[in-house]
Amino acid sequence: MALSPVTPDRISLNTATLREQWSLADCIDGCQRHGFGGIAPWRDKLQEMGVDRAARAIRAAGLSVSGLCRGGWFTEEGALTPAVIDDNIRAVDEAAEIGAACLVMVVGGLPKGSRDIGLAHGLVEEGLARTLEHARSVGMPVAIEPLHPMYAADRACVNTMRHALDICDRLGPGIGVACDVYHVWWDPDLAEQIERTGTERMLAFHVCDWLVPTRDMLTDRGMMGDGVIDIPAIRAQVESVGFSGLTEVEIFSALDWWKRDPDEVMQIIIERCAKVV
Amino acid sequence: MALSPVTPDRISLNTATLREQWSLADCIDGCQRHGFGGIAPWRDKLQEMGVDRAARAIRAAGLSVSGLCRGGWFTEEGALTPAVIDDNIRAVDEAAEIGAACLVMVVGGLPKGSRDIGLAHGLVEEGLARTLEHARSVGMPVAIEPLHPMYAADRACVNTMRHALDICDRLGPGIGVACDVYHVWWDPDLAEQIERTGTERMLAFHVCDWLVPTRDMLTDRGMMGDGVIDIPAIRAQVESVGFSGLTEVEIFSALDWWKRDPDEVMQIIIERCAKVV
Repeated sequence: MALSPVTPDRISLNTATLREQWSLADCIDGCQRHGFGGIAPWRDKLQEMGVDRAARAIRAAGLSVSGLCRGGWFTEEGALTPAVIDDNIRAVDEAAEIGAACLVMVVGGLPKGSRDIGLAHGLVEEGLARTLEHARSVGMPVAIEPLHPMYAADRACVNTMRHALDICDRLGPGIGVACDVYHVWWDPDLAEQIERTGTERMLAFHVCDWLVPTRDMLTDRGMMGDGVIDIPAIRAQVESVGFSGLTEVEIFSALDWWKRDPDEVMQIIIERCAKVV
Repeated sequence: MALSPVTPDRISLNTATLREQWSLADCIDGCQRHGFGGIAPWRDKLQEMGVDRAARAIRAAGLSVSGLCRGGWFTEEGALTPAVIDDNIRAVDEAAEIGAACLVMVVGGLPKGSRDIGLAHGLVEEGLARTLEHARSVGMPVAIEPLHPMYAADRACVNTMRHALDICDRLGPGIGVACDVYHVWWDPDLAEQIERTGTERMLAFHVCDWLVPTRDMLTDRGMMGDGVIDIPAIRAQVESVGFSGLTEVEIFSALDWWKRDPDEVMQIIIERCAKVV
């Protein structure tokens, strides 16, 4: 299958990419100005702008919303407290209000002081199940984002597509995965698991790049083309199962891209998406 | 199954743990003085001392050799050049000369400038096959050490027990795995893959700990008990398949343990092995 180039109208800006430079209002304007097809807000930016105001501005700009980041963090209090569940219910409602294609879940790592990863897995699955009840009632797809295994302790204890899909199999309809090349590129099992995902459960596709060396475990992600990930190969697999959503660009980069002129970053994203994604 | 405590005679010192403080000769003396059961040299230290001299000193000290670190690095030149193969043949011979229980393989990451992880996997498997021919002829077990996925690009593109065992299945007898808790603790598939490994293929068991936060991707590993890994749970699984080798302590720690008095480090290893391993 020949890959179509990712033209600007096929790109979604994850607001984390410019989180140090732009507010959500700035991001919406910027996406419109540069002809991006969509946006994916983080909740802090969304709440800062106001959900209702943001929803109207996004619609007025003609942008799709490829996802809302993030629900999850189920292990934060060591139990599924009402606060944890309520926050996820709110996340579902916010995602619905802005018309997001999915609510992206960063599920949480080990509870503070715990070495029991089995306990963490259990909390996560139960938390997802409870969020999913509400999400189904409002028709909001829930996307588990497997994070790179280096985040297992402190951000997310679901670290492979296989594990995420095992959970999806158990929880039934309404839940799928967000496939971010940064987190999964190393996995020899990736192609098989993407195929297993299928159209219905492939809810989001995120790109950035893995830099060598990586100087910081969280905030040294690369612009597409600057690292070692064969992004077109993964995109081809994701599209071959029928994914037709936007390509979402999410780059955490304290050392480089967060320091640059945001319009320059937008322009480089467009160039790289045309050439190396 | 109740776990027996790891007494000093059941501990092997990987020389990387004190690589900034002690030569191999110092490590051999130190292991004897502290009553350790074994040692696992890195090849730079071994060559610095001289293989023959080291072999005699290790025997004279009554130490076992739980492994030689490391063969592998098959992707370094982008092809299995004679230099790469010869170096692995030499590593096998050195392992045999010091009576190592196995030769530990750090297989190599992506070739320089390549994004083709499939190519890297192929080079690694062919390199292992060719090393194994010689290793079988001298009776030296080859141990694939799956490294944490954060090293896939620059150190080793075999990152799970499952992948390592798939390779072992294809290559046949004489090859198995080295299970290092640091690299595999996050894997939801771990217990199943340890069981799949079995007695014959479980060639080494390495311990240290995963610190939160981890400040450096290579050299910020923790002393057992200072991180989040449930080491006794993994040891119980490894021993339940019949592994009866030494517990090898390998800690890369530029920020802490490499700066300490080496005899203090040895003493703390003994205390931690008694309590939290």
